[in-house]
Amino acid sequence: MQTPSLARAISNATPTEEMNGSGNLMDFLDEPIPDVGMYEDFHTIDWLREKSRDTDRHRKITSRSKESIWEFVKSLLDAWSGWVVMLLIGLLSGTLAGVIDLAVDWMTDLKEGVCLSAFWYSHEQCCWTSNETTFADRDKCPQWQKWAELMTGHTESAGAYVLNYFLYVLWALFFSFLAVSLVRVFAPYACGSGIPEIKTILSGFIIRGYLGKWTLLVKTVTLVLVVSSGLSLGKEGPLVHVACCCGNLFCSLFSKYSKNEGKRREVLSAAAAAGVSVAFGAPIGGVLFSLEEVSYYFPLKTLWRSFFAALVAAFTLRSINPFGNNRLVLFYVEYHTPWYMAELVPFILLGVFGGLWGTLFIRGNIAWCRRRKMTRLGRYPVLEVIAVTGITAILAFPNPYTRRSTSQLISELFNDCGTLESSQLCDYINNPNMSRPEDDIPDRPAGPGVYSALWQLALALIFKMVITIFTFGMKIPSGLFIPSMAVGAIAGRIMGIAVEQMAYHHHDWIIFKNWCRPGADCVTPGLYAMVGAAACLGGVTRMTVSLVVIMFELTGGLEYIVPLMAAAVTSKWVADAFGKESIYEAHIRLNGYPYLDQDEFTHRTLATDVMRPRRNEPPLAVLTQDSTTVEDVETLIKETDYNGFPVVVSRESERLIGFVQRRDLTLAIRNARQKQDGVVSSSVVYFTEEPPCLAASHPQPLKLRRILNLSPFTVTDHTPMETVVDIFRKLGLRQCLVTRSGRLLGIITKKDVLRHMAQMTNQDPESIMFN
Amino acid sequence: MQTPSLARAISNATPTEEMNGSGNLMDFLDEPIPDVGMYEDFHTIDWLREKSRDTDRHRKITSRSKESIWEFVKSLLDAWSGWVVMLLIGLLSGTLAGVIDLAVDWMTDLKEGVCLSAFWYSHEQCCWTSNETTFADRDKCPQWQKWAELMTGHTESAGAYVLNYFLYVLWALFFSFLAVSLVRVFAPYACGSGIPEIKTILSGFIIRGYLGKWTLLVKTVTLVLVVSSGLSLGKEGPLVHVACCCGNLFCSLFSKYSKNEGKRREVLSAAAAAGVSVAFGAPIGGVLFSLEEVSYYFPLKTLWRSFFAALVAAFTLRSINPFGNNRLVLFYVEYHTPWYMAELVPFILLGVFGGLWGTLFIRGNIAWCRRRKMTRLGRYPVLEVIAVTGITAILAFPNPYTRRSTSQLISELFNDCGTLESSQLCDYINNPNMSRPEDDIPDRPAGPGVYSALWQLALALIFKMVITIFTFGMKIPSGLFIPSMAVGAIAGRIMGIAVEQMAYHHHDWIIFKNWCRPGADCVTPGLYAMVGAAACLGGVTRMTVSLVVIMFELTGGLEYIVPLMAAAVTSKWVADAFGKESIYEAHIRLNGYPYLDQDEFTHRTLATDVMRPRRNEPPLAVLTQDSTTVEDVETLIKETDYNGFPVVVSRESERLIGFVQRRDLTLAIRNARQKQDGVVSSSVVYFTEEPPCLAASHPQPLKLRRILNLSPFTVTDHTPMETVVDIFRKLGLRQCLVTRSGRLLGIITKKDVLRHMAQMTNQDPESIMFN
Repeated sequence: MQTPSLARAISNATPTEEMNGSGNLMDFLDEPIPDVGMYEDFHTIDWLREKSRDTDRHRKITSRSKESIWEFVKSLLDAWSGWVVMLLIGLLSGTLAGVIDLAVDWMTDLKEGVCLSAFWYSHEQCCWTSNETTFADRDKCPQWQKWAELMTGHTESAGAYVLNYFLYVLWALFFSFLAVSLVRVFAPYACGSGIPEIKTILSGFIIRGYLGKWTLLVKTVTLVLVVSSGLSLGKEGPLVHVACCCGNLFCSLFSKYSKNEGKRREVLSAAAAAGVSVAFGAPIGGVLFSLEEVSYYFPLKTLWRSFFAALVAAFTLRSINPFGNNRLVLFYVEYHTPWYMAELVPFILLGVFGGLWGTLFIRGNIAWCRRRKMTRLGRYPVLEVIAVTGITAILAFPNPYTRRSTSQLISELFNDCGTLESSQLCDYINNPNMSRPEDDIPDRPAGPGVYSALWQLALALIFKMVITIFTFGMKIPSGLFIPSMAVGAIAGRIMGIAVEQMAYHHHDWIIFKNWCRPGADCVTPGLYAMVGAAACLGGVTRMTVSLVVIMFELTGGLEYIVPLMAAAVTSKWVADAFGKESIYEAHIRLNGYPYLDQDEFTHRTLATDVMRPRRNEPPLAVLTQDSTTVEDVETLIKETDYNGFPVVVSRESERLIGFVQRRDLTLAIRNARQKQDGVVSSSVVYFTEEPPCLAASHPQPLKLRRILNLSPFTVTDHTPMETVVDIFRKLGLRQCLVTRSGRLLGIITKKDVLRHMAQMTNQDPESIMFN
Repeated sequence: MQTPSLARAISNATPTEEMNGSGNLMDFLDEPIPDVGMYEDFHTIDWLREKSRDTDRHRKITSRSKESIWEFVKSLLDAWSGWVVMLLIGLLSGTLAGVIDLAVDWMTDLKEGVCLSAFWYSHEQCCWTSNETTFADRDKCPQWQKWAELMTGHTESAGAYVLNYFLYVLWALFFSFLAVSLVRVFAPYACGSGIPEIKTILSGFIIRGYLGKWTLLVKTVTLVLVVSSGLSLGKEGPLVHVACCCGNLFCSLFSKYSKNEGKRREVLSAAAAAGVSVAFGAPIGGVLFSLEEVSYYFPLKTLWRSFFAALVAAFTLRSINPFGNNRLVLFYVEYHTPWYMAELVPFILLGVFGGLWGTLFIRGNIAWCRRRKMTRLGRYPVLEVIAVTGITAILAFPNPYTRRSTSQLISELFNDCGTLESSQLCDYINNPNMSRPEDDIPDRPAGPGVYSALWQLALALIFKMVITIFTFGMKIPSGLFIPSMAVGAIAGRIMGIAVEQMAYHHHDWIIFKNWCRPGADCVTPGLYAMVGAAACLGGVTRMTVSLVVIMFELTGGLEYIVPLMAAAVTSKWVADAFGKESIYEAHIRLNGYPYLDQDEFTHRTLATDVMRPRRNEPPLAVLTQDSTTVEDVETLIKETDYNGFPVVVSRESERLIGFVQRRDLTLAIRNARQKQDGVVSSSVVYFTEEPPCLAASHPQPLKLRRILNLSPFTVTDHTPMETVVDIFRKLGLRQCLVTRSGRLLGIITKKDVLRHMAQMTNQDPESIMFN
């Protein structure tokens, strides 16, 4: 038996023996055996084992650090490596976010025209640097030319419009075709928002390459392309994926993280926080998002480090200053008027709208994605992307609110109408006869601009609602934060203007009497847009605290937390009434990932109802401690595909002594056959301390105690499944053995638990409870 | 056997039987049997059992809700009760905080003088309402008279000073004597900050009366008294205790919370968040404080509700508006200049100071508290309070920075020197020859006021540092947030002024050259004070994220997060280098509470090293499944004090079948003896489904399967203790049975785990690892 170190690394069971020996776990870890301590693709990790391995590693380093100064320095480096990784993640993800922002800005404008003074300038940058721009015509400057103007010289003719229209669609198609091709050819994992998969990975599942370098590169590039193409999607979700890829990349620099799947997941949780932090410029919101929405195991140490990574990322982004306004946040807003209690009614209505939209979106999107999966539609992803892009571009161009990028739209909708605002939405009639100072913004009758804006917004709302359902889930990077917020912001702004005009025209109504005196500035439509955005985002993602905190960081004042919270709570309640799943959980279920969600399991089943073997199945495949032969073991490995086998005293007594992993067993026997003399097929395999008493004619027995896990997790057959689920969730188990009075009865794996939970949820709970 | 419902309520083991029957758990819960399902005082709760009971309750309500409309309404009320409790907690704790603030304001000023127009006005309120106050002399108005002025008519004479001094000390002594007497007589639990005990309670320990009505009342009243007395203590920690008392009070309104210790703890976690929220006006910081510092079990549902409670509390407080400035936060600050990278050096130095102060404070305070506990000192708590108050008042009066309340001091130290500031700290020399606009604040040479303020601050620093060590832990309510922050703020302001003057006098130094041009406004001493306060608070409490977020909410800008974070991180690292424990954990250990902290257990011991019985002890007290008599059981109960007994198949095989609680056993046998015929001392007790085969001469056997927990938690003797600790922590167990190959070997209780962990920490880790 030549694999003691291998065995020891895998088994977390025999520390007493190691205490006496010269525990050579580290020697082993330094050896370049590629496969050991790793998991196979699409397998679940064992959290307890990972934790135990890390503790061993840590102990080893601590004890060595007293031997020499070099070892002491190494132990310090090891202790600091977590912070170094966080710093690197923050720097890289902040930089990438900045680069993406700049590139998107430029390429979005490229669809409409080009800057003559420097083609790499976006419209805004181009006109900033121009001296010939007056304040009133900020958006117009001679350096910036639309395509038609550049090609034909005309600017206002019907021909120019058609040419601009055509080129807009063409650019959009080109961008999205490039994006989907890149994804198809180089990194199929780069598609989607990535959050469902990251949730699954953080819960302990292995998906190799999902967070790899290629995915990082391709996702970053294609994200720029698809956002620029004008599709109804956002970059926020994919940025979380990008940040996690950065985290995974830096993990590989430190063996502490690269060789321990548990520790790696701590880094990834923090990376997710950094991703949201740069997406919204909201570091605290990012940490809470990671805690609430994404992470599975989130110790306090991770909380603190996540916060650090999120802050570094936010400040890196601010140093790059992609929006050119020194603001950290995506949509900076400042409102000048407080809100009134009576406004809670429209806010709650917006919450109801958000909840309904969330339900509609999740149902529609999941139905469409299922259809894509089941039917021939799924075979033509490139064609699908081209078609959706074409439809989006053709419908979006005529409407000024959909032609521009979605972030610009949201930004305008959130905005309060200041005196210097040139937007159509701020086209109010200024009545010179009104005897009030003109320096601040009174409530005023809406002008024709506002009414036409209302129509266009209503059309934009319907368009966005429909197209987003078909866009999310295509084979391109696509986030849904921005489209959801856009839907809510449009609805909110419409409602805000409605309330404002009602208050203006009906000062005498009892609800407006005390609150909205004539001439007073009492309704801020921008706030309604923000509340609506929060409501819709909440309905789709079911975020709660993190949603409110992100929105709070956008405005920077506690003033508006109550409206936001009212809308978020209502939206969640309404949406939950139609189904508990968020869009991410729905996609996890659609893709069949083994994700054990945090919801409570409330059914009255017992471990005995879930364990295998079932009543009519053949008995459990077990090994005995001292009477199985090598051949028996090899047959068992060949004929079954279980991940491990319980070891019992004897087939008669069935008393459990431990659990052995299939992988370890295969490796150990192969190794023994190659290197250990006298091990033949009829050799007896034993797991006890002492070899069994055998007749002299028997070949040399093979001792495998080293690979035996002597502390397998057990529950009794009477344990309620809610407790079993709790144990699986909190301890991150892969499997659990079921016993009765010390006798082994069966086994429950994580997949059994998931299957059982799915069964229970689909059935009528009543039928389970009382039968 | 007449106690099926009793037994079922206690055992979480036999749901299969209940499924067939008409599960009458609820009927039972409605019965007024006072003791059942409760724990004894100073015992640990079983989280899994509490959770299981709540699930049962929930299932029952859900199934009943379909029976009638009334039941449906009841189920809705039940589902909403959590939110109602949160609302009530928010309202009450916000109100109490407001009342405390107002009362403290008034009584603090009462030590110096009285308002003639209305004696219940504080100094500030008195002069607000006065018309005769000019802006320059805001603090002086004829209505407000110092005691000496009122009694003798003189204001400036030496006699008046002495009289004021004497009355100041007298009032202080009176307030603190009243406080300590109230605590002694009515509510001994009202003393201290309460946070160590709340941490312990939230981790699953029962301390009856600690969160009771009397404690609430007395703590609120005495908190006002001690803060007004001018002792070096704060109201922030006790406010958390007050909020938790509110939480406990409202729990008793709903059986969902009052009858389930696990659910009750969810409410208390949220209440702690509300407490911090009102203490600092920082709702998000409050939630994170509860998550990071106080709570043990914090599911996402609690996070969301905590946030709600914290917001309601903060807004209630703002409606009361005790500071009269419409601000939510305790120390509202607004700085006008950004910070520069070079300033990180002094900020990190402040972090080092904070860490050292934290270590010094914890060591000094614990040594003093231990001495108080061990020696005769502890017998005279009233005398001790009087003495400390006397010393504090006598030393505090002559120094203007210690005479005023600590919050006012911190507020002044944090403040930026605006043009309208009349404080001594802002006494800079205005050089009329300088050719720069006077509208903002340049850096200027310090005037004589600043220098004398520096001396006074230095004295105040030493005084606060020494007196706080002796104050915290006396038999009065006492928080240490404010004194810690005061120490840091004084140190920070001194350093800030030093840096500012250095920058002014040495513009040509290389570090100032680029950053601090002559005439530029480059150093904000108030920011240094804030950073210092964060550092010292961090050193003492070891808060991290919540500390930064609370400070962030105070300033309301992301600008200053990096300095705060740098100081907080440094402070924590420095302090951790001298000892990992925060002041709260140190007090928990000092008081010997059974608190399982979240730190990792990294020693290489096994379950077999910790379990009882040890090698030389008598064997484990067990029951057999069908051969123990009632008399045997009664003898066992009489002779041992274990909380429960394992049940095995027989003494020979030692195969475990379940676990029975001592309390249930006692109740069941007493009940059977009273109500069930034929049960005598020689009756056999059996735990199997079928009665054992007995000779006809035997008395009727007693079936106790109902009270048997058929799913006791087991680990094998080879399980590493780090895994066992993890299981205890994550699943909240009370005890765990140890088996080998299905045979019962021993038992590990939470206390065994704690004892073992303490042993390991006190010994040299090396000696354990390699022996």
